[in-house]
Order: sequence, then structure tokens, then C-alpha cells
Amino acid sequence: MLETIAWTGTAVKLIDQTRLPTETVYVEITDERQMWDAIKRLVVRGAPAIGVAAAFGLYLGVRNADGTNDAGQFSKQLADVGDYLKSSRPTAVNLAWAVDRVSKVARAALQRNFALIDVKKAILDESIAMLEEDRNVCRAIGEHGLSLFAHLVAPGDVVPILTHCNAGSLATVAYGTALAPIYVGAERGMKFHVFADETRPLLQGSRITAYELQANGIPVTVLCDNMAATVMQQGKVKAVIVGTDRVAANGDVANKIGTLSVAILAKHFAIPFYVAAPTSSVDLSLASGREIPIEQRDPAEITRGLGRVTAPQGVQVYNPAFDVTPNELVTAIITEKGIVRAPYLAGLRAVCV
Amino acid sequence: MLETIAWTGTAVKLIDQTRLPTETVYVEITDERQMWDAIKRLVVRGAPAIGVAAAFGLYLGVRNADGTNDAGQFSKQLADVGDYLKSSRPTAVNLAWAVDRVSKVARAALQRNFALIDVKKAILDESIAMLEEDRNVCRAIGEHGLSLFAHLVAPGDVVPILTHCNAGSLATVAYGTALAPIYVGAERGMKFHVFADETRPLLQGSRITAYELQANGIPVTVLCDNMAATVMQQGKVKAVIVGTDRVAANGDVANKIGTLSVAILAKHFAIPFYVAAPTSSVDLSLASGREIPIEQRDPAEITRGLGRVTAPQGVQVYNPAFDVTPNELVTAIITEKGIVRAPYLAGLRAVCV
Repeated sequence: MLETIAWTGTAVKLIDQTRLPTETVYVEITDERQMWDAIKRLVVRGAPAIGVAAAFGLYLGVRNADGTNDAGQFSKQLADVGDYLKSSRPTAVNLAWAVDRVSKVARAALQRNFALIDVKKAILDESIAMLEEDRNVCRAIGEHGLSLFAHLVAPGDVVPILTHCNAGSLATVAYGTALAPIYVGAERGMKFHVFADETRPLLQGSRITAYELQANGIPVTVLCDNMAATVMQQGKVKAVIVGTDRVAANGDVANKIGTLSVAILAKHFAIPFYVAAPTSSVDLSLASGREIPIEQRDPAEITRGLGRVTAPQGVQVYNPAFDVTPNELVTAIITEKGIVRAPYLAGLRAVCV
Repeated sequence: MLETIAWTGTAVKLIDQTRLPTETVYVEITDERQMWDAIKRLVVRGAPAIGVAAAFGLYLGVRNADGTNDAGQFSKQLADVGDYLKSSRPTAVNLAWAVDRVSKVARAALQRNFALIDVKKAILDESIAMLEEDRNVCRAIGEHGLSLFAHLVAPGDVVPILTHCNAGSLATVAYGTALAPIYVGAERGMKFHVFADETRPLLQGSRITAYELQANGIPVTVLCDNMAATVMQQGKVKAVIVGTDRVAANGDVANKIGTLSVAILAKHFAIPFYVAAPTSSVDLSLASGREIPIEQRDPAEITRGLGRVTAPQGVQVYNPAFDVTPNELVTAIITEKGIVRAPYLAGLRAVCV
């Protein structure tokens, strides 16, 4: 299976996502400046993958600190490298969270007067633990999701699934969230066919989802977002599964723009609509999706996002990055701790303890 | 108002649609070879506009036939030019229909032993009549459609409308079909705001609809197809109107891919969904939309349609040109002879007599 991020023993190995879908190139990151650049330029992307990358970045930034055992100096270097890494994509919550988590482990070791070599080892161990955790969370989502998919067709038949954007292995350490049930099922010999919405304007579906499914041997068909209704009308899709950026306490789901449209179409055609969500993306502090702020992005992503100018100069453009799907359109939310169904408030609280 | 096609007295003046949306360039067509090329290269596009262009093309191709009054020779030249023009876009039904209509007028004049100069005049007169007819049909659709839009908001308020693809003035001689109510209303001082789906894969919405609305002074916002659900969710759209390629006898509507999706979203949000259809596009010989063949187009339109490769090599692609919206999602069909509502079979028969 395609590896998004791996620790080689001396370096972080990343698949360069800026070269996809036309070239498969791996890069080895050996210091914090290279990692900053890799995160900034979207060589690595997807909240879980960025978090793990940043944790290793912190290790790379302090591993050569000289061995004088000066805890104060080391502590300052740790803070400087952490702030530096956080500045690569300041709005990525997982990045700051990961840097802070590893820094806390380091400070605890320093307070206990560990030798610097052991503090460094604690930082590396925590980074590796986070990598393993992400893999395990995704795999658990895959197991739970698979229990929903298995009954959709007769045993041995192809399970046809539609997804939107990329919530696959390339957004995480492995497996992904929305695509995890497919990868776990494929490991057991189940057959899938994925319809991947291209996902305008930035085309994460055709560029990334199609690429990773193809690379991992899962049959995939790319379609424009506005064609999803037709494949559903023709009975070609048995379930929809998507990822999420944030789930409110009532089960409203924020995800890449276009998700709401797919959810409404799925309801119209009586197709189940599933959301794969690690509990880390459930935000119980928000009563409903109305409280989730929606980022508006650069009109040029639509009017010249693919190189050529495709709209008249000066035209108004609407370009929200996300939309909010109300809970009544969500058949179930699949977390690493189990499947949550309506009423969501109680169910999400139960898995988030 | 932007002119798609006009007769200058000596030439056909076309707006070069291959230069849109970045450049507004008019070309003057003075012979049948230039017209063949203009139709072939989509300088002029849209079934009604192509039909009128081809009619004038026939005139341009015979107007210099020498004055020997040899009816047989003239008749052969007429047939040759007609066949030649039909070969520019062989699948465009309107093109062949228009050439045949003008040819029939010419043959009738020849049979009545008109002088060649008068036969040529009859051809030109018929072409001009077709141009006027198209304008009148579109204007009548505009009048009927406006009666539906006028009550959507308080008098004086902006009427917010969503459309898909281009069924505007640039697909016809003037006014368009779906956009005709907006242009007619604007002439009377009504205010509109149009949300134009960009319409993947070929982007007729952002390239052409946005261009013509902007050029004609109608406020327009371009959005990706997958954003339509969000503007509806936010209450920003009061009605949807689209054109059609073919309407079956039961009111099922074939139109540009993505129309079905918009119709389902409109139903979900209780927004009226209107189809503007000249009676020439109603096909009473088809019992339902299931009988309408759907053209599959080149995958490269999706995977490299805008210059850059945006999907992995060899990936499967689904690229239907049209979809079929079932009649139960259609609030009304607006023809030049009036508004038709369910049950459509009787209503469509009545306007098509």
C-alpha cells in the first residue's frame, strides 16, 4: 500500500503530493527547514498526516542540538523549532496540536532531568507513537465502516461506492478515513468500485483519490461533481462515504464543498450517506453546524485554477471551501470507537469520552 | 444587447465564441467556406444559432452563382453547398433542418421559374425570416417565463435565479431560452441576480453564460456546480431555470449533464425548477426520457480539459454529455406558446399542434 509518511530510522520519507497524479516521487526529509517547506508547499497534506509530519519535524530540528546537557538552551531551541513549524500552515489545527503534544513530552523529560540524548529519544518515540496511533484510528474506522458495507451486495459481488474529495490514505498515515473501509475490505478479498467526484475547484478527487486508489489496486472511475446524480439514478452506487473537517455536537458535518449536494442526492435516491470521522474531529463545543465558520477562498481557484482563464474578467465568484450537511441527511457517523447514529448528541458524547 | 448573429446586408456578423470569455471579437462571414469553418470551430454554437447561421451560409454559397438562369446548374450548386454545410457538425439536427428548409423554398421558386436573382432573394428572405422567428420564439419564452418570476419577490426587489450551462442569447439569435425571461424583465426595469453554475467539464456556464450576462448588464455570480446546494441552503436562490436539448412527450427533460442534480437540489429546498423549451425541442415521438440516447464524450475533457493533466493516466472516466430529469422534478415547461404543467403529455401535445 502507498505510504504517505514513514520514518526510515534517519529521515522522514514522504510521497511528494505536488507531483501527483502524473509522477510518483518520494522525498526524504532530514531537517526542520525541509519539513517546513514540505508542509507549506503541500508535499504532505491532510490534517492527520500534517500533524505526524510536524511531530517528526520537531525531532529533526533538535536531534543535532549539541550534547552539553544545557536544558535551558535545549528548551529554547525546542520552542523555536516548534513555533517555526507551526508557521508553515498557521490555520492547520492538527499541526499546532501535534507540535504541542511532542513539546509537552520533551518538557516533562527535561523536568525529570533526563540526559538530552534521552529527551531526544522521547521526542522520536512520541512521534512514532503518533504515526502508529493515526494508522490504528484509521484502521478501526475501516473495520467499523466495513460492517456497514458488507451487507450492501451479495457475497463476492463488487461493492460500488461514491466518495467526494480525498479522505484517503494520502491525507493520513495510512488507510485514510472515508477510504479505510475499502482498503480493509480489499485486504480481505472484497471487491470494490469507487466513483470519485473530481471535486472542484481544486480537484482533490481526480488528482489524489483516483491516484491513490489506482496505486493501491482499487478500481476507480473519475466523474465530474455534477455527474453523481446520474450514476445514482442508474443504480450504480450502493453507498456514499466521505470524510469531515469538523462534526458538531448535533451531528451536522462540515466537509469539502460539494458534500451537501452529494448528501441530498443520496437521500433522493435512498442511498446511505456515511461520514468517516475520527473522534478528534468531533467538536462537542459546537451545538450545530451553523456555528462552523466557512472559509471563502480565492476566486482565481475557479476562474483560472487549471491554467486557463475560464470566466470573464471581474465577474463575481462564490468559492466557499466547505459546506455543512445537516444531521438528518447523515445515515451514520463512523468513528474509530464505533458507529454513531441519530440522535447524534448522545452518541457522539459517548464515543468522545 | 450582445448580438450573436446578424445580417449586415452583405455579410453575416458573428461574435467569435472561441475567444470568450477573455476577448470580444466580431467576425464577418462572406462565403460558405468561412461559415463551415465558423460552425465547425464553434465560433457560433447553440442549436438555434447554428440553424440560422447555416441558412445564411447557403445564401452566401449561391449568391455569386452566375446569371445564366440555368436552373439545373443552380439547383446542383444549392445541393452541394447544403451538403457541405451539413458536414460541419453532422450531429446538429437544427443545422440540417435549417439547410433543408431554405433549400425547399429555393426549389419551390425554381419550379415556379423565378429568375435566379429572385430565387437568391427568396433564400435570403427565408434566412432573415428564420432569424426573426428565432428572436420572436425566444422573446415569447421570455414573456411567459417572466410571468412566473415576477411574483417571487416583492416589487422592486432583486430576483435571484440559478441556471446551469448556457441557454442564453449566445445559443440563439437573441434573448436565449432560459435567460430570456431575465433579459425581457431587465428591459422593463426588473432587477435580477443570476448564479451561473460553471458547468463542468466544458465550462459553458463560466465561459459563456457569465460572459453574456455581464456584457448585457445583468449581475452574475459564477460558482462551481457542487456549490449550488449551498446557495440554495442559504436561501439565496428563488428559482432555477435551464434550457433543454430534448423534451419527451411525458415531460422528461434531457439537458446538459448536471441538470438532474440541480433539479433534485431544487426539490429538496422547495425551489421551483423551470425548463425553457421552444416547441421545436419537444419530441412527441419519445414516450419518456428513457428513450433519449445519452452521448458519452472524450475522457480527456475531464482529465485534461483545461490544459493540465488532472487525473492519473489510464484511470476510468465517466463523461456523459447530458442527463435526463424526470418530469416529477419539473415545476413547469416554458414554451413560446405558453406554460405547460403536469400532466405534461396533454399540455405538450396542445402547444405542439
